[in-house]
Amino acid sequence: MQEIGLIGLGRMGANMARRLSRAGLKLAVCNRTAEVAHTLAAEEANLRAVESYEALVDSLPAPRIVWLMLPAGEATETALQALFGLLSPGDLLVDGANAYYQDSMRHAEDLAAKGVEFVDAGVSGGVWGLDNGYALMLGGAPQSVARLRPLIEALAPAPDKGWVHCGPAGSGHFAKMVHNGIEYGMMQALAEGLALMKSKTEFDFDLAEVSEAWRHGSVVRSWLLDLTAEVLKQDQDLEKIQPYVADSGEGRWTALEAINQKVPAPVMSLALMMRYASQGNNDYPAKLLAMMRNAFGGHKVEPAK
Amino acid sequence: MQEIGLIGLGRMGANMARRLSRAGLKLAVCNRTAEVAHTLAAEEANLRAVESYEALVDSLPAPRIVWLMLPAGEATETALQALFGLLSPGDLLVDGANAYYQDSMRHAEDLAAKGVEFVDAGVSGGVWGLDNGYALMLGGAPQSVARLRPLIEALAPAPDKGWVHCGPAGSGHFAKMVHNGIEYGMMQALAEGLALMKSKTEFDFDLAEVSEAWRHGSVVRSWLLDLTAEVLKQDQDLEKIQPYVADSGEGRWTALEAINQKVPAPVMSLALMMRYASQGNNDYPAKLLAMMRNAFGGHKVEPAK
Repeated sequence: MQEIGLIGLGRMGANMARRLSRAGLKLAVCNRTAEVAHTLAAEEANLRAVESYEALVDSLPAPRIVWLMLPAGEATETALQALFGLLSPGDLLVDGANAYYQDSMRHAEDLAAKGVEFVDAGVSGGVWGLDNGYALMLGGAPQSVARLRPLIEALAPAPDKGWVHCGPAGSGHFAKMVHNGIEYGMMQALAEGLALMKSKTEFDFDLAEVSEAWRHGSVVRSWLLDLTAEVLKQDQDLEKIQPYVADSGEGRWTALEAINQKVPAPVMSLALMMRYASQGNNDYPAKLLAMMRNAFGGHKVEPAK
Repeated sequence: MQEIGLIGLGRMGANMARRLSRAGLKLAVCNRTAEVAHTLAAEEANLRAVESYEALVDSLPAPRIVWLMLPAGEATETALQALFGLLSPGDLLVDGANAYYQDSMRHAEDLAAKGVEFVDAGVSGGVWGLDNGYALMLGGAPQSVARLRPLIEALAPAPDKGWVHCGPAGSGHFAKMVHNGIEYGMMQALAEGLALMKSKTEFDFDLAEVSEAWRHGSVVRSWLLDLTAEVLKQDQDLEKIQPYVADSGEGRWTALEAINQKVPAPVMSLALMMRYASQGNNDYPAKLLAMMRNAFGGHKVEPAK
């Protein structure tokens, strides 16, 4: 396959570059901190570091294929603006970030006006993708996806497994958004259940042993359980961990989409709300509730520490 | 190993008997409808049908091992009452039903007063356990669990995998209860997400293809997703299926336990509430809400069909 350009060598991008290079594919890699690109190119075969978008576009064979693996939002928007001026009709731009699907639909339209093809690629697999392969959800025209076939087959867990052409531009990122919404719900269910066992001190459960047993033959066996069992094997008291769960766009977009589509999605939405609570955003309502109890019943209110 | 008694040849019990017999273990099998026991004994080696608890207890070598696989609640209570009069000190009774763990703790105490050992066994694996093995969560005294070791190793997916001795009597059924609570949450998350994709008609998702792709390399890969992908491969419109989800004890007990332990479990609890809603139990509050809107805003109310 022709050499393709890969922009963004964070945790996802760098490992994807490694997986592609090990499959024999040639890449020009580009990163905001050029040092990272040079180091990676020195470590892996088939990689060539470039220091600017101009150099990248100039040196790729036309019609070009450029794959973005930047954080969604501002970083991706800025790169798209820059590339918009550099790419030529017939080139193909892939956005592999966890972008909002409506942004991707807009990007596809903007680029189409210039004759540039666009594919939105939802990529799942985390830091394990290098070894296990990535699940890929692709949105775009069939002929655009077809151009990416060797790349897709190398990134996926197997050439014929773990990737799907979902539909038109935007549908890949929509599928990835929902995938992550489901992930929020599944994680929350596992965390609630294991916390309930932990709280049952009279049984003194060894959560590492229980979760390990569940990995085999049980209905809840899953990759998330595999990872959780490994976490619990190392430490099940978690006393050194802050009870703070970050969230990124997909969980919010899933909840917003459920609202807009009028699809009841209480579990996915509430899993997101519980993350907000973990971030301290339930403190004000909790204070207010305490004051209400005080107001109507004279119940004691604890002063702030 | 000595011949053991197995009471209850429903979907779970019959397949467990098959798996045990194929592992070379000898069983006396007993079922309310004796015909079922005779048919099973004729189909599988190492099985002997008995027609009554008396015949079962009389014909088993002492100290006996009797495993119950009856529906939790009344059926199990009735059998326990009957066996209570028949078993002797040193015998070991196992309850493999999805029983409420507090009932199991009571059973253990009652039987201990008579010198009969008790083990509560949470069994997961559904109709697939025959081939894949069952995940087993066991509660009881170490020496009681030790007596069951050959049985456990034959039922589990592998002799050293998929089973755990959780702690004292009750802890096995507690673990199974929580396992099923987690299952409710995971199922609900998957169903909500896939429904959200289905509702996005502009992308015309093929849910069979998307869920199949997710099975490989994605973060949500799981046994439940495997089954769901298979369901969607057969039919993704589900027009012939009533939107009714049954629930059994474990989901309720998990929600009750969360309340009693003061452990926030919104996802597991809400997954249960959504099943109640599917059973029509949201109809009255929905009617009442419609009438409230009418009362304060004059909004139209649809008459009952």
